[in-house]
Amino acid sequence: MHTKDGYSVVVVGAGLVGERLVSELRRRRFPFRELRVLARSSRRAILDGEEFEIGVAEPGAFEGVDFAFFAGTEGEKGAAVRLAREAISRGATVIDNGSDFRLDPGVPLVVPEVNARALEEHEGLIANPNCSTIQMVVTLAPLARRFGLRKVVVSTYQAVSGAGRGGVEALQSGAGEAFPKPIAGNAIPLIGSVGEDGYTSEERKMREESRKILSMPDLPVYATAVRIPVHTGHSESIYVELEREASPEEVLAAFEEASGVSFSGDPQDFPTPLEAAGEPETFVGRVRVEGDRVSYWCVADNLLKGAATNAVQIAETLVGARVS
Amino acid sequence: MHTKDGYSVVVVGAGLVGERLVSELRRRRFPFRELRVLARSSRRAILDGEEFEIGVAEPGAFEGVDFAFFAGTEGEKGAAVRLAREAISRGATVIDNGSDFRLDPGVPLVVPEVNARALEEHEGLIANPNCSTIQMVVTLAPLARRFGLRKVVVSTYQAVSGAGRGGVEALQSGAGEAFPKPIAGNAIPLIGSVGEDGYTSEERKMREESRKILSMPDLPVYATAVRIPVHTGHSESIYVELEREASPEEVLAAFEEASGVSFSGDPQDFPTPLEAAGEPETFVGRVRVEGDRVSYWCVADNLLKGAATNAVQIAETLVGARVS
Repeated sequence: MHTKDGYSVVVVGAGLVGERLVSELRRRRFPFRELRVLARSSRRAILDGEEFEIGVAEPGAFEGVDFAFFAGTEGEKGAAVRLAREAISRGATVIDNGSDFRLDPGVPLVVPEVNARALEEHEGLIANPNCSTIQMVVTLAPLARRFGLRKVVVSTYQAVSGAGRGGVEALQSGAGEAFPKPIAGNAIPLIGSVGEDGYTSEERKMREESRKILSMPDLPVYATAVRIPVHTGHSESIYVELEREASPEEVLAAFEEASGVSFSGDPQDFPTPLEAAGEPETFVGRVRVEGDRVSYWCVADNLLKGAATNAVQIAETLVGARVS
Repeated sequence: MHTKDGYSVVVVGAGLVGERLVSELRRRRFPFRELRVLARSSRRAILDGEEFEIGVAEPGAFEGVDFAFFAGTEGEKGAAVRLAREAISRGATVIDNGSDFRLDPGVPLVVPEVNARALEEHEGLIANPNCSTIQMVVTLAPLARRFGLRKVVVSTYQAVSGAGRGGVEALQSGAGEAFPKPIAGNAIPLIGSVGEDGYTSEERKMREESRKILSMPDLPVYATAVRIPVHTGHSESIYVELEREASPEEVLAAFEEASGVSFSGDPQDFPTPLEAAGEPETFVGRVRVEGDRVSYWCVADNLLKGAATNAVQIAETLVGARVS
């Protein structure tokens, strides 16, 4: 897929992630010649400061499209279930932020810093991982490469914008049903639906998707996913057991050299969601090393690296443009 | 120490914990004949709905006192450093919520549901543990008794009232220096001061105090302590490895029978800080069991069970009154 004039790109979805896809495609100068936005119904909307004539997401809208980014909706079936095959049959490459195809063995699930090679073979559909998973594997990958991983225990501190505009509304006014209990001044330790083993769908995603991305199908991952009253920026407290003992210096060096990771070695310094919001990287701090056990804190913008930025990086990798 | 007429009680400190001590001593009907409040300087203040004539915390004020509760201040030297010996030499039993004496081998560090026996020998001074530690050991103790503990990994979600009135003010108006970064709409993964090993003082308290209370001096405890924008109610995501495999039913039974624990076995049900605020118990939910690994969520009012309620329960145990 090469073109002198640039690619025809559509974004399906005009919610928080759809808007971030528009802004990231522009900010990162993805080589598009046209950029359209589709949704369930046509309307005009301001996205990333510009008025868009939003078209209807129907099969014919994908004629001539090179890249179709599906914004997806966590916790619901995404539009890709209905339309991905239609887009692919018309020649488009689909990058889906929804969760519907992520664990399909024929669909690459990609975080470019971690497993860009998985893009070498695909059938037109590439899945973008869950927001909480992306920032976790960006930080686990350098540890896995250098030291090996035996076990991961993670607790999340997730922002309301991960639940879309309804989540933001619930924090700001208490309205709506985005969350099962009030979120303002509270912490809600249940994201998604609870399965028979007691784990939630969000926690299962973190386990299953991480295993697939890291190519470690048996990696023990014990996740607890919690919503807190933060607008944007997911945080994670991560404890890992390595396959060998490591010195603090070795672990700090692994984070310093890691692609996509912004890391300050100053033990007094730590990233927070307020600071990470709007930034494309994953931030690491509070690193503590005791033999083969490492604890750390990581933060990323759940709408950017956790969704839109990662999706655009996938497309950049496919067209041979930069990945940073 | 017996008296028909009840005990002479003083509370030292008129901050959030001091006020909760006054209200818990009354609500739980601790048998006092007089209840006075002392602070650095004399003044009048409304505490628990009643106007108190606050006296000066000086040695002479402890004449004739049976119980002196020191409210303490996390992160600073408490008034007990200056005055506990003065109070004890005048015959008082001191219960100190500060951190200064907790790890002193001659000072019992007590959570009555866990180690009331430690009260059988003391020299007039009993330490009340750190707020985050108390709710954790209340929930670890039933697991330790039934199954044994090999390892604990804990991440906290701590309320601003744990930092006193200044913490509440910082959340509500952004003013002051209670926290190193803004707390509204944010998560701050640093409570207290950072040591050479990278752990904070709060995280070290959780490890060292838990080991002492549980009489498990070598228990591995990997803690990450985080402040979130919640007024009152600390939450904790806890992962433990047991000494043997357990069935989910056995683990649920352990929590159901545990003293001081409020537990719903409904996997859809979970406690939150908004609901736990104002309640004396420790709430447990989101229990997941996989062989010898157990993950769960616990919440308690950091000013009540995390401070005032536990202190009053210690005094109740000493005088043979109820502990509930």
